[in-house]
Amino acid sequence: MKRHPLLTGLGQRIREYRKARGLSQEAFAAECGLDRTYIGGIERGERNVAILNLAVIAQGLEISMSELLSDL
Amino acid sequence: MKRHPLLTGLGQRIREYRKARGLSQEAFAAECGLDRTYIGGIERGERNVAILNLAVIAQGLEISMSELLSDL
Repeated sequence: MKRHPLLTGLGQRIREYRKARGLSQEAFAAECGLDRTYIGGIERGERNVAILNLAVIAQGLEISMSELLSDL
Repeated sequence: MKRHPLLTGLGQRIREYRKARGLSQEAFAAECGLDRTYIGGIERGERNVAILNLAVIAQGLEISMSELLSDL
């Protein structure tokens, strides 16, 4: 899908938090029970992620969804 | 889809904010450029809403997404 500033901003933030936790995309995806290519797509801002998956990702990053989306 | 506590909680919150603004589902949907039945489904917790639509809804409610999702 077409990239959107909100999606690219969210993706960058997820990538930063993931790296801060010292996790590869593969390790993080496994922790979340999601596919690595799906996580990659989200981090590149190519996925209009739905709220239930966003909750799984926030949990995997050990932050709240509210924090994940703050100022985006 | 099966209801999920996060979705029902989000739906209830959206309904509360919408009513606080004195808007019917129909008026709010029109303001958001979304379908009334879609808004109804979200408020009932039946929709796993994607982030771009959540942004539109938060904007329609005049709050941030972060505020909309806080403590859910």
